[in-house]
Amino acid sequence: MGTTPAQVAIILGSDSDWPVMQVCFRQLRDFGLLVTVEILSAHRTPDKLREFVIAATAAGTQVFITAAGMAAALPGVVAACTTRPVIGVPLASGALQGVDSLLSIVQMPPGVPVATVAIGEAGARNAAVLAVQILALSDPRLAEELQKFKRNQVDSVDKKNQSLREQLGLG
Amino acid sequence: MGTTPAQVAIILGSDSDWPVMQVCFRQLRDFGLLVTVEILSAHRTPDKLREFVIAATAAGTQVFITAAGMAAALPGVVAACTTRPVIGVPLASGALQGVDSLLSIVQMPPGVPVATVAIGEAGARNAAVLAVQILALSDPRLAEELQKFKRNQVDSVDKKNQSLREQLGLG
Amino acid sequence: MGTTPAQVAIILGSDSDWPVMQVCFRQLRDFGLLVTVEILSAHRTPDKLREFVIAATAAGTQVFITAAGMAAALPGVVAACTTRPVIGVPLASGALQGVDSLLSIVQMPPGVPVATVAIGEAGARNAAVLAVQILALSDPRLAEELQKFKRNQVDSVDKKNQSLREQLGLG
Amino acid sequence: MGTTPAQVAIILGSDSDWPVMQVCFRQLRDFGLLVTVEILSAHRTPDKLREFVIAATAAGTQVFITAAGMAAALPGVVAACTTRPVIGVPLASGALQGVDSLLSIVQMPPGVPVATVAIGEAGARNAAVLAVQILALSDPRLAEELQKFKRNQVDSVDKKNQSLREQLGLG
Amino acid sequence: MGTTPAQVAIILGSDSDWPVMQVCFRQLRDFGLLVTVEILSAHRTPDKLREFVIAATAAGTQVFITAAGMAAALPGVVAACTTRPVIGVPLASGALQGVDSLLSIVQMPPGVPVATVAIGEAGARNAAVLAVQILALSDPRLAEELQKFKRNQVDSVDKKNQSLREQLGLG
Amino acid sequence: MGTTPAQVAIILGSDSDWPVMQVCFRQLRDFGLLVTVEILSAHRTPDKLREFVIAATAAGTQVFITAAGMAAALPGVVAACTTRPVIGVPLASGALQGVDSLLSIVQMPPGVPVATVAIGEAGARNAAVLAVQILALSDPRLAEELQKFKRNQVDSVDKKNQSLREQLGLG
Amino acid sequence: MGTTPAQVAIILGSDSDWPVMQVCFRQLRDFGLLVTVEILSAHRTPDKLREFVIAATAAGTQVFITAAGMAAALPGVVAACTTRPVIGVPLASGALQGVDSLLSIVQMPPGVPVATVAIGEAGARNAAVLAVQILALSDPRLAEELQKFKRNQVDSVDKKNQSLREQLGLG
Amino acid sequence: MGTTPAQVAIILGSDSDWPVMQVCFRQLRDFGLLVTVEILSAHRTPDKLREFVIAATAAGTQVFITAAGMAAALPGVVAACTTRPVIGVPLASGALQGVDSLLSIVQMPPGVPVATVAIGEAGARNAAVLAVQILALSDPRLAEELQKFKRNQVDSVDKKNQSLREQLGLG
Repeated sequence: MGTTPAQVAIILGSDSDWPVMQVCFRQLRDFGLLVTVEILSAHRTPDKLREFVIAATAAGTQVFITAAGMAAALPGVVAACTTRPVIGVPLASGALQGVDSLLSIVQMPPGVPVATVAIGEAGARNAAVLAVQILALSDPRLAEELQKFKRNQVDSVDKKNQSLREQLGLG
Repeated sequence: MGTTPAQVAIILGSDSDWPVMQVCFRQLRDFGLLVTVEILSAHRTPDKLREFVIAATAAGTQVFITAAGMAAALPGVVAACTTRPVIGVPLASGALQGVDSLLSIVQMPPGVPVATVAIGEAGARNAAVLAVQILALSDPRLAEELQKFKRNQVDSVDKKNQSLREQLGLG
Repeated sequence: MGTTPAQVAIILGSDSDWPVMQVCFRQLRDFGLLVTVEILSAHRTPDKLREFVIAATAAGTQVFITAAGMAAALPGVVAACTTRPVIGVPLASGALQGVDSLLSIVQMPPGVPVATVAIGEAGARNAAVLAVQILALSDPRLAEELQKFKRNQVDSVDKKNQSLREQLGLG
Repeated sequence: MGTTPAQVAIILGSDSDWPVMQVCFRQLRDFGLLVTVEILSAHRTPDKLREFVIAATAAGTQVFITAAGMAAALPGVVAACTTRPVIGVPLASGALQGVDSLLSIVQMPPGVPVATVAIGEAGARNAAVLAVQILALSDPRLAEELQKFKRNQVDSVDKKNQSLREQLGLG
Repeated sequence: MGTTPAQVAIILGSDSDWPVMQVCFRQLRDFGLLVTVEILSAHRTPDKLREFVIAATAAGTQVFITAAGMAAALPGVVAACTTRPVIGVPLASGALQGVDSLLSIVQMPPGVPVATVAIGEAGARNAAVLAVQILALSDPRLAEELQKFKRNQVDSVDKKNQSLREQLGLG
Repeated sequence: MGTTPAQVAIILGSDSDWPVMQVCFRQLRDFGLLVTVEILSAHRTPDKLREFVIAATAAGTQVFITAAGMAAALPGVVAACTTRPVIGVPLASGALQGVDSLLSIVQMPPGVPVATVAIGEAGARNAAVLAVQILALSDPRLAEELQKFKRNQVDSVDKKNQSLREQLGLG
Repeated sequence: MGTTPAQVAIILGSDSDWPVMQVCFRQLRDFGLLVTVEILSAHRTPDKLREFVIAATAAGTQVFITAAGMAAALPGVVAACTTRPVIGVPLASGALQGVDSLLSIVQMPPGVPVATVAIGEAGARNAAVLAVQILALSDPRLAEELQKFKRNQVDSVDKKNQSLREQLGLG
Repeated sequence: MGTTPAQVAIILGSDSDWPVMQVCFRQLRDFGLLVTVEILSAHRTPDKLREFVIAATAAGTQVFITAAGMAAALPGVVAACTTRPVIGVPLASGALQGVDSLLSIVQMPPGVPVATVAIGEAGARNAAVLAVQILALSDPRLAEELQKFKRNQVDSVDKKNQSLREQLGLG
């Protein structure tokens, strides 16, 4: 973990999850956050997963972002080991295109929530934004960055709108 | 809104959502939070919804919990109006038993996350716990309460386990 | 909007919806209608969306065609801002191939309908035809064009039938 | 049909659809429309169905509202026989709770749209409102009634909100 | 139709269904049956469809094989016009991969059956075999051909089994 | 089997299927057919099932109607043992309301068709009608009965239509 | 655990799972096995769950039967802690009727299998039978009991068949 | 079968299942087991399937691994013919991507279990591991191999974790 703990820890159930989840990592870095990434599996390395979550919680990690496909137990198992907010990103590996993963993550029993976002890359990016929204509650710089991020979204849609309308000879 | 703003605002898309969502309200009260409840619809009262979210955000509300059934646009529309974390509870009204509501809430496009929890009462309770987990990041009293809450869960399962094992003449 | 208002306004939730929805635009143009296109998002540009729909309604736009993927709140939010007929086209972006979008659009609560058509390109074309059917109720030229359109469909199927039957040496 | 033709014709695939669809009938009557109701089946009385739709179209019926459960061919078959707008209400009869009916109605091929609304009672009411929205395009009285209807929805939500907030001792 | 009527009529909802359905056509020809093929749509050419089915029934066609994708009304509409057995083949066009078509075909109301087979090419072949099984009830030559067909299936599996086992050095 | 073989054999996977399937039995009897019923399970009594199907086929049974819930292997296993047409009725037992049964029955591999009908009671009745349609191909009396049956359906819908319209004061 | 370890350990995620799972317990007892039952949650008591599984494995428990509803992580988490066979029973709690639980249990990643059985009571009984089949591989008494169990199933179906056929006046 | 019987028999419903199932075969061989493979179909070669399962059971085969797509009756039919544990691997052939196969395999009626694993390649590998877990209960060498296999999984995840963390410049 190093001396300055990561504010956000991204945990992947498998290295094959990285191509989608690097979007999340980059978005968090763009907001200037301290981020760490670990590949840890609820089914293959349960002890290391548990140790990491407990140690990271103790060291001060604020939010856990977890991503897994198929029978995605990882987010719930992380939530079982900490009282910090846990975000879950369902991934579309295997035959069922993420429906299995979505239900495995979102349908948590009472008392142990996982904040679930969309399947795949949209969810990967939104997990980062949600983590920033949570941390911004006590960090005015982040809160300001979020405002900018929201305005940029408006500008980006505006530009695409103008570009399409020009192409079509509208206004 | 009154002089002291609510820390958490629960927004229901319809008064028929209250029987399920009162579990959420009570859980938040049990943690000693200032909570408000509003019935506001993304489809029937869009202007009042928008005004409320903007005003509550300005007044200092930290987390929005939103609940709706069917084509549940409410959580996403609230997320569009604030940079505060928005939690979405899918409700099982109508023929499709909450699948429509779950997908309408969780499948948000990149940039505008909604933290989605389970369908129905389990989700209603978990929305409260997730809100507490978020607020506890900067509130040591809440963080301690969460620890107690987690220990109570262990005790509660233990008691049920002992009771069943005694009933069966085991151990 | 210009001085002569569009009779039909197509609103896309994202520029990535255009490749599918241009089928709709062309079909409307082929019927000789005044059409405008806007990229406006219920989640990213909610204020501009609302302003556009109110202004277009006031200016005399008769029918709104809305298209979005994933948690498609756009059609319902447009319907919340106008009393004009709103048509919704579910698009198959993301992992769930349009099921999320279909349910987010069609399962509207009582009082705020969205006229939903098929997922993807079939729906894009049918949104245009439905808009024409609606406008034709008070426009005899359009009504006649629709009759021609329907007869052309018969002829087109006939030709394909003859061509296949010849190829197979039937009749 | 009588001398003054119905503006809206409701067609039910079975008499068992009436308990849900009477909501639609009453809503249309409340708006002061001339409405007729027929039980006609695409599978059991296809000739009578076809004759009715052709005759009603000729007599001046403006909008067809069709409702059916299971393999709901009725809406599409009506759309095949007229160029007037056809609205489809999926009903939740049988084991699959309306999913079969929804897909049978909404997934129309290009060229023959059915304006599909929600499954069951919500859809039954919205079919009526959508028909009124269509007819209001050329009927200022109806357009005004729709404005009132929309304002009443706001008031109704407001009242429920106040009632719940009083009950909870809020505001 | 010609002077000798087809024993089996294959009706396609669209020419795009032919690449899958030619498997059905060839299988029927291999069994020595008189087969015809027509492209006729329940939604685009309803009158021609009805005329064809009534004429073919009168001329002595014994079995109708119908194939369509999406909101597949065709099989049910054919069944509505004849008392001959109607076989339905759901095709996987559009976003939903044939689930829409399967439910539109199989969930027929009481009194008007469609004999539904598997989605796509497996169903296309099985529609032919089912038609042969039906016709073989009163045709001893066909009954014998079916016995041969069944024995050939056993031999074909046997050969594949031996080939794989040899490749693996088993027995 | 007795001296005169049954024309149609109904095979149930479980005695719990009888309350739904007696509709099928009665419908066949109403058409004057010789019908037998057996409870035989593909999973619990596979040898007896196989013996029965082979013996019944040899004795002259023309059509097999099979009904089962959950992982419904019965229809396919019967089809594996005979070249006679096999009709499958999916039943809605267990948690999944017949979706499991429907897919287990309809998705047969190429070469071994099962003629699948709707889930539950609608399918039970339609299995009988489909069997009659098949047998009527070589039985003029049955063919005539089917015509009557179809006319009765028209009359039945007519009466319900008139009754509803009178009740509503229409025509 | 006591001095003689249980051969089979049933682990329930919640006490509400007992009404369904007692069928499993009784079936195992009827086969004369030593069985224990524990309520232990992957999400609420993860440490106790892990300790139990490791201790039971060390003490000689041969098979673990696990049952849970919703996001059922329990079976996979048990499989992560032992190399003994783990059987998973999906339960139909909550809005989705066990689909969430089924996918959470069956879709395990490579290397960590869970032997999944049917949703609900059928699965509860089959989990017991599967455990007996596994233990019978090295226990001739159990192997003989299984043969009897299978013969009893045949007899039970036979009796129901005879009873129904007598009631109907068949054979 | 040869003089030394296979401990595990893999049965494929079709030769097209081999590309996925060879993963299973190799995994079993890697554990040093005697394995045989047969292509035998519940629908095309039911008699040979039955004979093989009965003979293999008599000869001492301990576990059956069965794989099939679509309406996958094979696993249940094998379970009907033996009291040995039967493992079922659903395969994703056809339009429905394995959902049909999963439900056809897992939803077995009470008394005849099939131990179901994940759809496709993950399930193919897990079927092998599950068979090894079952055989290891009475084979100390296998039990030790399983421990090694589990440790190797930990090492493999560790290496991937270190590799990713180095690539990102973490720890």
